[in-house]
Amino acid sequence: MRYHKIPDETIRRLPIYLRGLLFSSEQGQQSISSHDLADFVRINSAQIRKDFSYFGDFGTPGVGYSIEKLVKQIKRILKLDVIQKAALVGVGNLGSAILAYPGFKMYGFNIAAAFDINPKKIGRKIKLSACDGRSIVIENVSKLPTLKKRGINLAIVAVPRDAAQQIAEALVKAGVKGILNFSPCYIAVPKKVKVITIDIAMDLARLPYYMPAS
Amino acid sequence: MRYHKIPDETIRRLPIYLRGLLFSSEQGQQSISSHDLADFVRINSAQIRKDFSYFGDFGTPGVGYSIEKLVKQIKRILKLDVIQKAALVGVGNLGSAILAYPGFKMYGFNIAAAFDINPKKIGRKIKLSACDGRSIVIENVSKLPTLKKRGINLAIVAVPRDAAQQIAEALVKAGVKGILNFSPCYIAVPKKVKVITIDIAMDLARLPYYMPAS
Repeated sequence: MRYHKIPDETIRRLPIYLRGLLFSSEQGQQSISSHDLADFVRINSAQIRKDFSYFGDFGTPGVGYSIEKLVKQIKRILKLDVIQKAALVGVGNLGSAILAYPGFKMYGFNIAAAFDINPKKIGRKIKLSACDGRSIVIENVSKLPTLKKRGINLAIVAVPRDAAQQIAEALVKAGVKGILNFSPCYIAVPKKVKVITIDIAMDLARLPYYMPAS
Repeated sequence: MRYHKIPDETIRRLPIYLRGLLFSSEQGQQSISSHDLADFVRINSAQIRKDFSYFGDFGTPGVGYSIEKLVKQIKRILKLDVIQKAALVGVGNLGSAILAYPGFKMYGFNIAAAFDINPKKIGRKIKLSACDGRSIVIENVSKLPTLKKRGINLAIVAVPRDAAQQIAEALVKAGVKGILNFSPCYIAVPKKVKVITIDIAMDLARLPYYMPAS
């Protein structure tokens, strides 16, 4: 089921709320006011209440929102309530950092496979983040067609710019439905496949605006 | 000069537009319609026109927006019209990927220093991205206090979670006014310092929502 009325901008903020709620929950909180959540995630509280109103109201005046209920609801909307398997393609510096990153598990992702084209890397065992604890063995990119039967339909692409389009096409052929692209370029895929391109430099571009004149 | 009336959400989109415009310009275009830009950056054209209306209107009916004028204006608003020097702290996998990333230069950033605590890394020469061409030598974090006199007031933090708060405090002491934080944690700084925390897993959390049921 998809909640058609939720705007994309709200969907973009839901993972931010989810992370804030999970952190608050780790600290032993059971409920949170929109003001406290606003302080934490740095989004204003009116916006938070408006966003939450799209999928029902869990707030109690004077008490706040039930963290457990909100987490459940946000995960359900984002389809993170079932473990999602993802494959990484490209185990260079960025790919290695991605494998070691603790955040993926928090959102319910399981990095289930890693691929590279470099014969020196293929077959090497890589430890995932400490909170995950597993290791995975780097496979040859020629094995991408096995993704479908392994139930992996999400991929993270961290290959050089020149290789990104070709890898994306191989992933689509292998049945992948969603791609998180860290390569510094746009990639073209059929409409049924969703691509989100990350530019790790882009957020830096917002900083000078907010800095006081020196 | 700061344009006080521009909402944060518009500021967040300006680097996205800037990148789309620079790519179009590289392809030889001189003007672009809001519809073509919308296709490119995947933000709807009404939103684009609304965002551009905050800082004046450069559009000509039937021709579109002048790319050169828009790029100039967006860079001026974001204070990217002067080269901004930035320091990287933490040259692990993620830090190395950041140094090699071509995007920073595109936005007008000059990664002018890199620091680590590991004696094996200190003194090592690292090549920046191919489009930059320079190399820099990794310095001891004990040298952070030199940032002020070197005119560096922006920092990128890519250290382990446990070290992030301490590094942030050293950066603030060294006169840094803006921090792009890649460490998976919130860091607390005085109000006059702006921090943007990046969670490289967060964008993956939006993907399943957009994927067709399989």
